[in-house]
Amino acid sequence: MPWDGVIPEAEQAEYERGGWGGTVGFGERPALLVVDMYTAFVDPAYPFAAKDAPETATRIAGLLAEFRRRELPVFFSTARREPTPASRGRWKVTGTAAPIMQNADAYDIVPELAPRDDEYVFVKTYPSMFAGTTLLSQLIYHRVDTVVVTGTVTSGCVRGTCLDAFSQNYIVNVPLECVCDRGAVSHAVALFEIQMKYGDVVPLQTVVERLEGR
Amino acid sequence: MPWDGVIPEAEQAEYERGGWGGTVGFGERPALLVVDMYTAFVDPAYPFAAKDAPETATRIAGLLAEFRRRELPVFFSTARREPTPASRGRWKVTGTAAPIMQNADAYDIVPELAPRDDEYVFVKTYPSMFAGTTLLSQLIYHRVDTVVVTGTVTSGCVRGTCLDAFSQNYIVNVPLECVCDRGAVSHAVALFEIQMKYGDVVPLQTVVERLEGR
Amino acid sequence: MPWDGVIPEAEQAEYERGGWGGTVGFGERPALLVVDMYTAFVDPAYPFAAKDAPETATRIAGLLAEFRRRELPVFFSTARREPTPASRGRWKVTGTAAPIMQNADAYDIVPELAPRDDEYVFVKTYPSMFAGTTLLSQLIYHRVDTVVVTGTVTSGCVRGTCLDAFSQNYIVNVPLECVCDRGAVSHAVALFEIQMKYGDVVPLQTVVERLEGR
Amino acid sequence: MPWDGVIPEAEQAEYERGGWGGTVGFGERPALLVVDMYTAFVDPAYPFAAKDAPETATRIAGLLAEFRRRELPVFFSTARREPTPASRGRWKVTGTAAPIMQNADAYDIVPELAPRDDEYVFVKTYPSMFAGTTLLSQLIYHRVDTVVVTGTVTSGCVRGTCLDAFSQNYIVNVPLECVCDRGAVSHAVALFEIQMKYGDVVPLQTVVERLEGR
Repeated sequence: MPWDGVIPEAEQAEYERGGWGGTVGFGERPALLVVDMYTAFVDPAYPFAAKDAPETATRIAGLLAEFRRRELPVFFSTARREPTPASRGRWKVTGTAAPIMQNADAYDIVPELAPRDDEYVFVKTYPSMFAGTTLLSQLIYHRVDTVVVTGTVTSGCVRGTCLDAFSQNYIVNVPLECVCDRGAVSHAVALFEIQMKYGDVVPLQTVVERLEGR
Repeated sequence: MPWDGVIPEAEQAEYERGGWGGTVGFGERPALLVVDMYTAFVDPAYPFAAKDAPETATRIAGLLAEFRRRELPVFFSTARREPTPASRGRWKVTGTAAPIMQNADAYDIVPELAPRDDEYVFVKTYPSMFAGTTLLSQLIYHRVDTVVVTGTVTSGCVRGTCLDAFSQNYIVNVPLECVCDRGAVSHAVALFEIQMKYGDVVPLQTVVERLEGR
Repeated sequence: MPWDGVIPEAEQAEYERGGWGGTVGFGERPALLVVDMYTAFVDPAYPFAAKDAPETATRIAGLLAEFRRRELPVFFSTARREPTPASRGRWKVTGTAAPIMQNADAYDIVPELAPRDDEYVFVKTYPSMFAGTTLLSQLIYHRVDTVVVTGTVTSGCVRGTCLDAFSQNYIVNVPLECVCDRGAVSHAVALFEIQMKYGDVVPLQTVVERLEGR
Repeated sequence: MPWDGVIPEAEQAEYERGGWGGTVGFGERPALLVVDMYTAFVDPAYPFAAKDAPETATRIAGLLAEFRRRELPVFFSTARREPTPASRGRWKVTGTAAPIMQNADAYDIVPELAPRDDEYVFVKTYPSMFAGTTLLSQLIYHRVDTVVVTGTVTSGCVRGTCLDAFSQNYIVNVPLECVCDRGAVSHAVALFEIQMKYGDVVPLQTVVERLEGR
């Protein structure tokens, strides 16, 4: 797993001592969440892109096709230049003011993941796709019980979205090839902690099989 | 800082490239949050305690005295044996069923941090002290603008509480000697990410000075 | 309907002009919510009881039996003497301090609706059963799509609960014999507005048939 | 008061029996909320406008000037043609599909209340301005303790917004000349219930004096 060599064995043993880990499985009504796969977070020319974001986009596109083929709900998130200090929040970041962020397509979802007209794109401000949006009510509308969380960055918006989904009692699955991060350590540690406590971090192939096997 | 040697320099450089880090400072009306400092999470006999939880309790007690002396609001969280599967949620943990967790004082806040009658203790189910509780409305009642987050574990309930506080636009401060974790890597990475994005991770002494200097 | 003679025809015509009304129907996975049927809100000796609260309790008991027989989820709410000003909130009420409210059973759910050990009772502070509780995550756990809202008072906690359920995209049904209020006008107007906009206000018999006909 | 003659004296006496009513007053940091004053809800040509919406807009404009003069935060809400069933929710209304609702300015805030570039407009789906928006975090950013709620309709989105504000422990004030409704009974009953339980329903002049007298 991606955290081997990052989380020392003694620390993994601490989790065993508490009885952490195991499997949450998969429900009957999954939804796919694609977190923040917009140009400024995918294109290496921007200061926010993880190195492997383009390949991650390609792999998410494959999973997206599986969801669309089965007519299952799919949700995207992006951001925008917020107009006021209160709507921008207290992010400790200055890079969003960089000239390149003024590009017209900076906040567009990348073309290979382009949302269809009947798919919803949340414009969010905070890490979690749930915070300050109607994602929760839209999941309830579709009677979703399982969320498959993909996108970027693993340790930030992906993790925050997983945590909120878990705290609302959704079954959480993270296909490990479909998330990416700027830092390998942050990526590995986030996946480890999600797997120990909140959801199943599994190969993309496993998610596809679970989707098929419902 | 605790993350040096854990987060490689090249990964720290990625954060610099995005303009992360900086300072959020301190507001005029701080509240102290003491997350999950109950017996089962502090006493080394239990499977959930971080090794340095007892010393962390002692340091939090000092900060608690500073808040009480100034009559500033203080909030605690604990858990309980929840009666139904739906109220227990989807935690991937079996250790909560261990015989030792049946001890009468397993969910009591440790004596040196014992809440006073006029201090509120939230019984929570999920990582964040905000999830499914009235913490937010109580902070609003007290016109709080800054939360100082302490307790255990850094990478779990402390981090989840910081993230929700940040996503509600509170100024977040984490005094680094007042949080602890079962794993040193998880601890360091959580603090690094909070410091880069969501709040100020600073020495306890700095928090005390900020409290004084309002 | 209970609002005829209370809402003038000309005002009902305004709702027709906007295309309000219609039917939301019933989903596959209903849950029953029993709002605030505790002694102080049911027993006429207390200053908060609606006159017809005891008969309403009897009718709710019948519906509760239907839900239990089908092993469908059931949730209750009550209140308690909250310990701090911030946890009591900004209710404009002094009656909660009356001597009778100190009775040991003031906040007990009335005996004919006594919750079973495997049924959850939320201790709430605000009108809606969702506010500051884990009701939402528990409904999600049970994959509920429809909430049947009963209890007291129609224009206060029942209405607030219906509004939050609607705003989370649940299908809302209110069996009109299973809600009561201190004032006949408030009762009628609340039911009219729920029926026009947010959910189906229907005879108890209709709810039982919908339950049967899923 | 507007509810005299609508709520019978015997029913008002029931509220006295419970000790309802009184005053919540005004805090130090008020914000103004202008709920749904967009063309389709103000212009009498549309099926959703209250008859006195235009005069209400004029009176809100006066209060808006008072808030702007003091550089206090101001927030607006509007709606839009939502793209999917899940994002439209379960509103029991067909009038939103009327041809007139396709007008380009149907969802524009009316000109005399036109938001400035530094004032935020929430695009909301549900009654309360808090539901599925970042209003709460923006109020927290501005350290608001009091919300003055204006707009349309009194018994729907205004009331829902007041209820959520109350449930988050904000001090709620409703200037009675600055809210309007399609129905006189609904209007009066909503104001009565807000005044009894959740906030202060007072003349506009009183709000202006409280604003001045902080």
